[in-house]
Amino acid sequence: MNYKVPLKDMHFVANDVLDMPTHYARFARGHAAEPDMVAAIWEEAAKFCENELAPLNRIGDEEGCTWNDGEVTTPTGFKEAYDNYVANGWPLLACPEEYGGQNMPESMALVFMEMMIATNHSWSMYPGLSSGAMKTIHTHAPDHLKQRFMPPMVEGKWTGTMCLTEPHAGSDLGMLKTKAVPDAEAVEDGTYKISGSKIFISSGEHDFADNIIHIVLARLPDAPRGIKGISLFLVPKFNVNTDGSLGDRNGVRCGSIEEKMGIHGNSTCVMNFDDAQGYLISAPNKGMSAMFTFINESRLGVAMHGQAHSEVAFQKSLAYARDRVQFRTKPRVNADKPADPIISHPDVRRMLLTQKVFAEGGRMLNMYCGKLVDVSLAQELPSEEREEAETLLAILTPIAKGFLSETSLETTNLGIQVFGGHGFIKEWGMEQEVRDARISQLYEGTTGIQGLDLLGRKILGTRGAALKPLMDEMNDFIKANRWNKHGRALKPYVKMWQSLTRSVGWSAMKNTDEVNAAAVDYLMMAGYVTVAYFWAQAARIAEDKIEAGEGDADFLQSKISTADFYFQRIMPRTLGHEQAIKNGMDSIMSIDEDKFLFV
Amino acid sequence: MNYKVPLKDMHFVANDVLDMPTHYARFARGHAAEPDMVAAIWEEAAKFCENELAPLNRIGDEEGCTWNDGEVTTPTGFKEAYDNYVANGWPLLACPEEYGGQNMPESMALVFMEMMIATNHSWSMYPGLSSGAMKTIHTHAPDHLKQRFMPPMVEGKWTGTMCLTEPHAGSDLGMLKTKAVPDAEAVEDGTYKISGSKIFISSGEHDFADNIIHIVLARLPDAPRGIKGISLFLVPKFNVNTDGSLGDRNGVRCGSIEEKMGIHGNSTCVMNFDDAQGYLISAPNKGMSAMFTFINESRLGVAMHGQAHSEVAFQKSLAYARDRVQFRTKPRVNADKPADPIISHPDVRRMLLTQKVFAEGGRMLNMYCGKLVDVSLAQELPSEEREEAETLLAILTPIAKGFLSETSLETTNLGIQVFGGHGFIKEWGMEQEVRDARISQLYEGTTGIQGLDLLGRKILGTRGAALKPLMDEMNDFIKANRWNKHGRALKPYVKMWQSLTRSVGWSAMKNTDEVNAAAVDYLMMAGYVTVAYFWAQAARIAEDKIEAGEGDADFLQSKISTADFYFQRIMPRTLGHEQAIKNGMDSIMSIDEDKFLFV
Repeated sequence: MNYKVPLKDMHFVANDVLDMPTHYARFARGHAAEPDMVAAIWEEAAKFCENELAPLNRIGDEEGCTWNDGEVTTPTGFKEAYDNYVANGWPLLACPEEYGGQNMPESMALVFMEMMIATNHSWSMYPGLSSGAMKTIHTHAPDHLKQRFMPPMVEGKWTGTMCLTEPHAGSDLGMLKTKAVPDAEAVEDGTYKISGSKIFISSGEHDFADNIIHIVLARLPDAPRGIKGISLFLVPKFNVNTDGSLGDRNGVRCGSIEEKMGIHGNSTCVMNFDDAQGYLISAPNKGMSAMFTFINESRLGVAMHGQAHSEVAFQKSLAYARDRVQFRTKPRVNADKPADPIISHPDVRRMLLTQKVFAEGGRMLNMYCGKLVDVSLAQELPSEEREEAETLLAILTPIAKGFLSETSLETTNLGIQVFGGHGFIKEWGMEQEVRDARISQLYEGTTGIQGLDLLGRKILGTRGAALKPLMDEMNDFIKANRWNKHGRALKPYVKMWQSLTRSVGWSAMKNTDEVNAAAVDYLMMAGYVTVAYFWAQAARIAEDKIEAGEGDADFLQSKISTADFYFQRIMPRTLGHEQAIKNGMDSIMSIDEDKFLFV
Repeated sequence: MNYKVPLKDMHFVANDVLDMPTHYARFARGHAAEPDMVAAIWEEAAKFCENELAPLNRIGDEEGCTWNDGEVTTPTGFKEAYDNYVANGWPLLACPEEYGGQNMPESMALVFMEMMIATNHSWSMYPGLSSGAMKTIHTHAPDHLKQRFMPPMVEGKWTGTMCLTEPHAGSDLGMLKTKAVPDAEAVEDGTYKISGSKIFISSGEHDFADNIIHIVLARLPDAPRGIKGISLFLVPKFNVNTDGSLGDRNGVRCGSIEEKMGIHGNSTCVMNFDDAQGYLISAPNKGMSAMFTFINESRLGVAMHGQAHSEVAFQKSLAYARDRVQFRTKPRVNADKPADPIISHPDVRRMLLTQKVFAEGGRMLNMYCGKLVDVSLAQELPSEEREEAETLLAILTPIAKGFLSETSLETTNLGIQVFGGHGFIKEWGMEQEVRDARISQLYEGTTGIQGLDLLGRKILGTRGAALKPLMDEMNDFIKANRWNKHGRALKPYVKMWQSLTRSVGWSAMKNTDEVNAAAVDYLMMAGYVTVAYFWAQAARIAEDKIEAGEGDADFLQSKISTADFYFQRIMPRTLGHEQAIKNGMDSIMSIDEDKFLFV
C-alpha cells in the first residue's frame, strides 16, 4: 500500500515524450545531466524520499508544529530528515556553481521535488520555499548580498521564505501596509527598517536551520499607492555580518502559527516585523515584478503539489482496489474467494483511470514547464528561443497551477471513494491526502486568480499574442498527426480553445467583467486541452516505439489505452465549460448583493 | 457570520412550490400540520438549533468522542443539548400517536432535520439514527416488541442504530458473517443469540440514553448464501423485561471508535456482538428487504446532510464575501474604502450562486421526497397514488442522496475558495464543513452504489417502467409551460435523460458492464436535470406571484434570477456527462488489472 516513486514513468516522460537528452545537450547547465547520471540521482532521491520522508508523513499530520514564545518545533523526525538532506548534499542539486551548487538543470531537480511532495508535502515545503527565495536573491539582489546570503542557503544551512500576505491584503497585494524606512544609522547602504505584520508565511519559523532569510514585500516612504508602490526586501532572522558570521537576532518574530485543515507538519506563521533590519533587493517600487520570480517558481511548485497528490492517490487507490474484494464480476476473477477485487468493476476503474490521467498527464505538463525554465535561464541559447519559452511559461504556469491543483481535489477525493468508508478513517491515510492537497487550490493565488492571470492578464492583455506559441505548437502536432487518431482527437479541442478565446475577447470589449465571469471555466477548459495535448503525444510516441519494437510493450500499450480513456471519458467535460462561458455573465450579475439570501 | 435557519425559503418551498397545505388536507396525519402550526413549530425548532446546537458544532469537532473500556463520552454539551431536546418533546414530532408521538407528517419533520444537520451534523446523527430504527421496528417488528421498545424510543429516552457493515462486507452486504442462533433457553419465542463484529456503526455507543436499540443484519443457521440469507434482528444494549423495565447488560459492546476526517462529535463504533440476545423482527432470510425501510430513510437523511452543508457553506461564504474587501470593481462600491467587497467580482458571485442553487434546489428536491413519503405512508389515500409515490421515491432517493452529497463536496469546497487562505484555517469553520460533508458521499452507499441502484436496479431493472412517472411529471410541466422560458429551458434536458436511458439500455443488452461504467455520470446527469425541474417550477411560480402582486417581490425575483443562473451556468455540465456515457466503456476496460502502474 506504500507509494513508490514512479521512476519508469519519469524516465518515459523525460526521455521519450520530452526528449530531454537532446535538450540537455544544447546548453551548458544541461551537459552534466547525462541520462545515466540523471537515472542514478533520481534513484538515490527516490530512496531518500521513500525511506526518510514517507515514514514521517503521518507523524507530521498527527503532531503538527508547536509554537512556544516565538520558536517553532517541527514534528518528530522532521529536523533529522532535514539534517540528512543537507548532509547528503541534496540542496545543492540545481543551485548555481558560483555558490557551491551542482548546477544541474531545473527540470531535473523538479522531478526530485515531485518525489518529496508525494512522500511528505509538509516537509517538502521547507526546501521548496528556500529554493524560491534563493532564485529571487540570485536574480535580483546586488552582488554583495548574494555573496553573503547565498552560500549558506545553497548548502541548506539557512532556509528562506516569501512574505507577501497581510491580514487585509490577500489576493489584492496592492493594499499591503508593511513599511520600510531607510536606516540612517546603518553602516551599509540600502539598509532599511521594516515594520508590519505578515500572515500565512509557510516555513516562516522552524527548527531546521541556523538562519531564515525572509523575502518581504513592503512600502517605502512616499511610495505610490497600490501595486506600483511595493518594494522587495531581504530580512534575515539573524543579522549577518559582512564576513558572513551571524550577528544579533533581528526584529522579526513568529507571533503564532495557524491551525489548519492539512499540511500540519509545515509551520504557517504570523510574522511580525518590528524595525527589522532589511535590504532592498530590487529597484524601489519595482518589488512586485521582482517578486514574480518567486511567485512563478512557487506556482510551478504548487502545480507539482497537485500532480504529486494525484499520483499518491492513484497508487494507494490502485493497491486497495486490487486487494479489496466486493461483489462478483463476469467472468469471475477469484473463483476461490467469496468475491472479486473491486478493480474489476468499471466504476472503480473509471475512478482509478481518472486519477492516473491527471497524475501522469500532470507530470508531462510539469516536466515540460521545467524544460521551458531551463531554456529561459540558458543565456547561451538564442534570445528568440528563450523569449518564446518565457511566453509559453507565462501561459502554462497558471494552467498547471490552477488545473493540476483543482484536479488533485478530484483525484484525492476519488481516492476516498475507492476506499469507501475506510477512506474517511484516518488510519488509511487517504483523507490526509485530501486535506494536504486542499491548500494547493489556494496558495500562490486561488484558482480564480490563476484564471484571471491566464485569460485576462496573459491572453487578452496581449490581444492573444501570448497564446500563439502554444497554439502553434499544438497545431503543428495536429498537422503532423493528421492521419493519426490522436492528432484527430486533439484537433476539435484546440479549435474550441481558439474560438472561445475570440468570443470572450469580443464580449470583454463590451464589458470587462465577462473576463472575470469566464475565468475559471476558461482555465479548466485550457487545462483539459493542454493535458490532452500531452496525452496525445505520449500515445503517439508509444505507438512508434511499439512499432519499432523498442521499450516495454505493456507499459507503452497502457499509455495508449490511458490516452484513449482521457479523450473518451474526460474530455467531454470541456463541452460544459465551453457552453457555460458562451452563456456569459448576465445570470451571474443580475442579483443585487443584498438579495442573495432572505433570512 | 452565523448560519440562520432560512425559514422564509422553507415556507416558500412548502407553501408555494409544493403546495403542502393542500397536500396536508388530504390525509389524516396531515390535518394537524396547518400552516400556522407548521410555522410555529419551525420557528421554535430554528431557535433550538441556532441556540443550542450551533454553539456545540466546533466543540464537537475539536473534542470528538472518547472511548473508555466500552463506554463513549460525547463532546462537552452534547448530552445536555440532547436532554433539552427530549425534555422539550422534540423526538415526538413525527412519531405515531400509538406510542405517544405527535404524529406530524414526515415532510414537516424533515425540515427540522435540515436545521439540526446545518447547525450540528454530528449531533443530528444521534436522533437521526433513532428515527430510522424506530421506523424499521414500527414497520416490521411483531406487536409485542413494538409495545416494549417503541415508547421509550419515541420519547427519546432510548436511541437506535443500524448495524450493517462488517470489515469484509461493505457495499457487498451479501458477504456478511454475523450469526444468529435460536436461543433454546429463552423464555420468549423469536429470541436469538447474535455473534459477530460490525464496523462503522454511527451512534453505536454514547452517553445520551438509558438504552440503545441496535437493528442488526445477521445470518440464521443454514441460511442461503449471499443477500438472500440475511435476517433482521433487534438487539438492545440492555435487555428489556416484558414489563419494559431494564434488565441485564446484553452481550453487545463497543470495541473502539474510529478516528475520522470529520463528524468527530458522532461516535463511529466497532460493535462486538458476543452471544447477545436479539429478536427476529422480520421473516427469516428476508432481512435485507426489511432493512431497506431503514436504508431508504437514511439515504434521504444523507441527501439532507448534503443539502444542509450546501446551505451553511452558502450562508457563511455570502457573509464573508460581503465583508471582505479586495480589489476595485467598476463602478466602485466602496468609494470611501481601499477596495470593494469581493461579492462584486463575477467569479465570486459564480461561486456563491453555485452554492445557492444546490442549497435551495436540494431543499425543493428533499421536501418533495418528504411529500412522497407522506403519501406512501397514508393508508387512506388511493393505493394507485401511493404506489406511484413509492415509484417516484425509488427513483428520487438515489438521485437525492448521490447528487446532493456530491454537490455538497463542491459547495463546501467553493466555500473554502471564497474564504481564500482563511478557508483553510480551522478558526473560520469552513474547512470543518468540508470534512463533515465528506462522509455523505460514502455512507448509506457510495455515489457509485447510488448510480448502480438508480440506473441498474431501478430503471433498467424495470425496463424503464420505474422512471416513467417522473418523466411524465416533468413532461406535463414542460407541456403546461411550453410558451414559457422555464418550460422551454427544461425540455431538451428531459429529452437527453430519456434518450440516454434508451442508449445505455441498448448497450447493456450487449454487455451489462456498460451499466456500471455509466452509473455515476448517469446519476449526476439525472441530478442536474431533476434539480433543474425544481428550479423551473420555482421560477414559474415566482413569476405568477409577482404578476398577481403576491409575496415579497425581491425574494421572488431572486428566485427567477437564480433559476436563470442554474440553466445558464450549471446545466451545461450535463453535456459532458452525456458525451462521456455515449463514449461507452471500452476505454475503461481495455487496461489489464496488472498494467495500471509500473513501479
